[in-house]
Amino acid sequence: MSRIPVAVVGATGAVGQALVAALHGHPWFTVEALVASERSAGLKYRDAVRWVLPGSVPPEVADRTILDVTADLQTPIILSCIDAGLARELEPQWAQRGHRVFSNASAFRLHPTVPLLIPEVNADHYALVQYRDSAWKGLIVTNPNCCVAGLAMALGPLTKRWSLERVYVTTFQAVSGAGLQGLAALPIADNVIPWIAGEEEKLQKEPPKILGWLQGARVVEYPVEIIPSCYRVPVRHGHTLALVIEGDADMTPERAAEAWRDFRPPDWVRQLPSGVGQPIRVWTEVDRPQPALDRDEGQGMVVHVGRIRGQAGRVLCTVLVHNLIRGAAGAVLLNAELSVSLNPL
Amino acid sequence: MSRIPVAVVGATGAVGQALVAALHGHPWFTVEALVASERSAGLKYRDAVRWVLPGSVPPEVADRTILDVTADLQTPIILSCIDAGLARELEPQWAQRGHRVFSNASAFRLHPTVPLLIPEVNADHYALVQYRDSAWKGLIVTNPNCCVAGLAMALGPLTKRWSLERVYVTTFQAVSGAGLQGLAALPIADNVIPWIAGEEEKLQKEPPKILGWLQGARVVEYPVEIIPSCYRVPVRHGHTLALVIEGDADMTPERAAEAWRDFRPPDWVRQLPSGVGQPIRVWTEVDRPQPALDRDEGQGMVVHVGRIRGQAGRVLCTVLVHNLIRGAAGAVLLNAELSVSLNPL
Amino acid sequence: MSRIPVAVVGATGAVGQALVAALHGHPWFTVEALVASERSAGLKYRDAVRWVLPGSVPPEVADRTILDVTADLQTPIILSCIDAGLARELEPQWAQRGHRVFSNASAFRLHPTVPLLIPEVNADHYALVQYRDSAWKGLIVTNPNCCVAGLAMALGPLTKRWSLERVYVTTFQAVSGAGLQGLAALPIADNVIPWIAGEEEKLQKEPPKILGWLQGARVVEYPVEIIPSCYRVPVRHGHTLALVIEGDADMTPERAAEAWRDFRPPDWVRQLPSGVGQPIRVWTEVDRPQPALDRDEGQGMVVHVGRIRGQAGRVLCTVLVHNLIRGAAGAVLLNAELSVSLNPL
Amino acid sequence: MSRIPVAVVGATGAVGQALVAALHGHPWFTVEALVASERSAGLKYRDAVRWVLPGSVPPEVADRTILDVTADLQTPIILSCIDAGLARELEPQWAQRGHRVFSNASAFRLHPTVPLLIPEVNADHYALVQYRDSAWKGLIVTNPNCCVAGLAMALGPLTKRWSLERVYVTTFQAVSGAGLQGLAALPIADNVIPWIAGEEEKLQKEPPKILGWLQGARVVEYPVEIIPSCYRVPVRHGHTLALVIEGDADMTPERAAEAWRDFRPPDWVRQLPSGVGQPIRVWTEVDRPQPALDRDEGQGMVVHVGRIRGQAGRVLCTVLVHNLIRGAAGAVLLNAELSVSLNPL
Repeated sequence: MSRIPVAVVGATGAVGQALVAALHGHPWFTVEALVASERSAGLKYRDAVRWVLPGSVPPEVADRTILDVTADLQTPIILSCIDAGLARELEPQWAQRGHRVFSNASAFRLHPTVPLLIPEVNADHYALVQYRDSAWKGLIVTNPNCCVAGLAMALGPLTKRWSLERVYVTTFQAVSGAGLQGLAALPIADNVIPWIAGEEEKLQKEPPKILGWLQGARVVEYPVEIIPSCYRVPVRHGHTLALVIEGDADMTPERAAEAWRDFRPPDWVRQLPSGVGQPIRVWTEVDRPQPALDRDEGQGMVVHVGRIRGQAGRVLCTVLVHNLIRGAAGAVLLNAELSVSLNPL
Repeated sequence: MSRIPVAVVGATGAVGQALVAALHGHPWFTVEALVASERSAGLKYRDAVRWVLPGSVPPEVADRTILDVTADLQTPIILSCIDAGLARELEPQWAQRGHRVFSNASAFRLHPTVPLLIPEVNADHYALVQYRDSAWKGLIVTNPNCCVAGLAMALGPLTKRWSLERVYVTTFQAVSGAGLQGLAALPIADNVIPWIAGEEEKLQKEPPKILGWLQGARVVEYPVEIIPSCYRVPVRHGHTLALVIEGDADMTPERAAEAWRDFRPPDWVRQLPSGVGQPIRVWTEVDRPQPALDRDEGQGMVVHVGRIRGQAGRVLCTVLVHNLIRGAAGAVLLNAELSVSLNPL
Repeated sequence: MSRIPVAVVGATGAVGQALVAALHGHPWFTVEALVASERSAGLKYRDAVRWVLPGSVPPEVADRTILDVTADLQTPIILSCIDAGLARELEPQWAQRGHRVFSNASAFRLHPTVPLLIPEVNADHYALVQYRDSAWKGLIVTNPNCCVAGLAMALGPLTKRWSLERVYVTTFQAVSGAGLQGLAALPIADNVIPWIAGEEEKLQKEPPKILGWLQGARVVEYPVEIIPSCYRVPVRHGHTLALVIEGDADMTPERAAEAWRDFRPPDWVRQLPSGVGQPIRVWTEVDRPQPALDRDEGQGMVVHVGRIRGQAGRVLCTVLVHNLIRGAAGAVLLNAELSVSLNPL
Repeated sequence: MSRIPVAVVGATGAVGQALVAALHGHPWFTVEALVASERSAGLKYRDAVRWVLPGSVPPEVADRTILDVTADLQTPIILSCIDAGLARELEPQWAQRGHRVFSNASAFRLHPTVPLLIPEVNADHYALVQYRDSAWKGLIVTNPNCCVAGLAMALGPLTKRWSLERVYVTTFQAVSGAGLQGLAALPIADNVIPWIAGEEEKLQKEPPKILGWLQGARVVEYPVEIIPSCYRVPVRHGHTLALVIEGDADMTPERAAEAWRDFRPPDWVRQLPSGVGQPIRVWTEVDRPQPALDRDEGQGMVVHVGRIRGQAGRVLCTVLVHNLIRGAAGAVLLNAELSVSLNPL
């Protein structure tokens, strides 16, 4: 088939770069438009971008002229990695005009008829789009916050077997999670920063929607209390999460490990271009996972679980997620692939 | 008064260096003997040590010849920063021969008649020494693990007002906590390591003794369940702890903050040479404490508490402790000062 | 004497914060005005600043309202840490209005009648101010780039004894050298960046002026060729420089070491409030200086020289300078003190 | 063809791990023996090794029992990554017994009849083995120090066109260059260390042999003076080198860039399993190469050259080499492949 043209909005940012890199050689999609803020608009991509990924700017887009974020886009698909404020304004306009918008922004994640997807966990929630705002000829589909991408993936297989009551989560977040402009070098050098604006609220609110049940035009939230503490650490990529999961008394560390090991998403999800055969890797080595060693497995789409321990009713573990890939660019792309797979253009 | 001669055992290690530095100009003590492993014995201190602290080796000890750890020491006071295995063997021998041993090793921390002290919190436990092994003409006094130094200091003022039930603690431990030889540079570069050998057990076992009540010849443990997760992060000095403290329903974040702010140890403890006027500093700034900024306050003897939040019965906060000072060298020294203050030599 | 009011312009930046911290308790000066960009103007300093230094915002300035950079300042002294573009516009205006401006900006460093000072090296160049623009009722005095602060200090004592021909300098620059906004966290994490905009040019052009001879209304440049290579490394504070100094055949490593050890600036300079008894520290330890250990010596005003080696006519060494103090805030302050000392207000 | 069995000696170290990883799926070789120090001998590889590379221990070797370094090895090929002292003793014994030894150790690099190879640069030096010690039924072939692997690769194409006189090289060496045990975490945290034991001497002595001419039974050294300054920086992998290359007046930055771009090793070398089509990558982007982005290109076998500038007769540039791959494990392997290619087993 000929490849579907897509627009990458926010193309000079860290997530935008990861998208541009992932779209190089993508079997279904081709980058047609690169969109960024006023400051970059009109420049060639290679001149506007400060490239922070391995390799160089892909040659097929290097000389592309960047469009302003307010430009009238022509691609059926828009991959949106802009900030929440801008997303709140622009994404509904794009949806109205008929675009399918796959967004990494937090603006519409909790909107009742916008799917908040981790396809391996809740692909069925995609059906929410049928109840979307009638003014939208297109649609908006979102992926979760970068920590939630790991957290909800880890909780998913457990909720199929047990009731979870409470999850304590302490995060060790990499600097790339703040994007290219969100964190200066000086504050985090040789340091741990015990606060990330807005993050803890996302960790509390997003997982119940992802883990919930689709019921007609809405998602019934999964009733789990999440108690988050978010920290920034001086690591390039890869968010580490320390979890304490409390729930049914028959949830033991051994059975939880088994649930993670046995977890298999639907084949059609795993076989999407950005899918991965086994999205959760379970470690038995006592000191794994580690971001420097494990973040890139499965092109960054694998979520790692290790140090599984605890007692009946209380499971402790370490989760690792590549924030820029599974937690952002790869998630956007997987959602777009899911949409095209279910509903071809 | 003329200064009391002390021996520093383990003098070439990171904690030993911090002790040597802290003893430079100390009003009560003077370094008479520097003791290290066979490998260093016979060398001058300046040649044997790989100095990792600000400044240089203090001139008064630079040319001192290092004694072997098995040497017959003559000082009334021994400051011991050796590993647990060696401590288990040597410290009782020293105590038998009449030395007062102040030890950073874990070997005797849980021994029923050896005090495990944070003087600001449980100076009264020093009285345990009267029930010590009758073969000991001297005594052994220990200080807690470097994380526990921060954890138990933070819990102390709360236990005076409320019953605590359970504490979830996730640690962000600096590389100096592993000592000079305990951690290689490669594994922790750009990384988070989700495991530290033996650490979680110490976090569970030591605080109940420190927070407990002296009852005749023993300490009745404070009945709190501690659920630890220990991580190493690429930071030079300063352990950060993310706490969730669950207890009485009338323990609110506001009241806990007040308990910390109002905490005043006995004057005679605060006025010891290594004492500090206010050993807990409470932060209201949303992003503090941070190791790079705050670890050195009060010569590293202040424990910081920030990000105090939560609800009735559940208080979350961030604790910062300088692992090498308050968590090791400074703690050894404060215990020695306490002993001499209570029971002059 | 009552203290002289000063304005700190660029007060929320990293250098501005270091100035505010250094002015806390300063014997001669007191902060009257805090000035920053439009974004911060009108806010309280404590709310506008993202504090990145040890401790907290000094209480006496915490609630001060920030003035806009275009405000009509009333203090006789202005300490300017703004960027070069803005400095080019504003500093001459301030000088016209009668202020003494001490500037960390590069805008006027090479201006023929503006002194470019390292007081220990070329305090006599201060006399240039008498030939300044006749429209200036006040004056502008500048300090060098943060690397040059270390480089020219190291070269100074050598130029008194030998002719230098050529200096190869490779820098290892800390992230705080980029200021608070100049470098994002992601690019430098686990990385070395082989380029810093505009830096190499400054390293070539500034030292010849500093090391030159005052001749009437101008400085005759010292004829040394500088071949710079500037790199950013993931270190919080402290620029390290690897030097190869080529010159007279009777310049040997031993004699150069002696020249550095014997270097004594004029007493009246050393006794300024920000002066330091011996501004160059020579290391014989094979692996020193190191930024993590040595940058803070002498409140950050000491320049370190170590690893002195080579042959007749070619001396290699390592230089360390605290970029934020000796290379910026401390340099501004020392120049202001010099000016008041020579020419009381 | 059936695969040739090889022994990896020093298999638990960082270079040994990289070799084990590179041999997984190697088309010509298969790991038969894993050899390490007495401490590890007798253990399973998976239990003895502290794995510091992406992924896990390859399954085919995980349960292999480690042999002691003094074991009687049976493989025709020995890949040696032991320290120089041990190599000096063992490698000649292995050669005597008929093994082909490919060594990363420095022990025999400068031995007159032992080839010191970068196959792309001086594959012809392999012929030295015909003049080897008559007691050796086997042979020893060495690869250079990890910095020299980048330095000599960069100088090679220039020496074909111009006479080089002098090279100033300042290094920014990653922590993995010290191996797993060679550098503790504390000293390098937030730091630059201006000294690496023995390193500068290697940078001076090895390139003249690599760049020299084979003349009968010996190599005539290339007469270039190298002035090295070696520094350790807090980077995980990838050594960065800042070079100033002085030579013929018709060597300009433009022509040097052309020489690097046009560099093509013999096809038979490029087509070895560990060969790479173009072993030098030239960057025109002003801020590249960077270790975090570029070290892994070509499975770590590409040497990068960027920031090419200067004047006629003096070329400055930045070189990046993956110390663990091109500078060690990959170099050992490429030499073994070269040997088997020239002289099949």
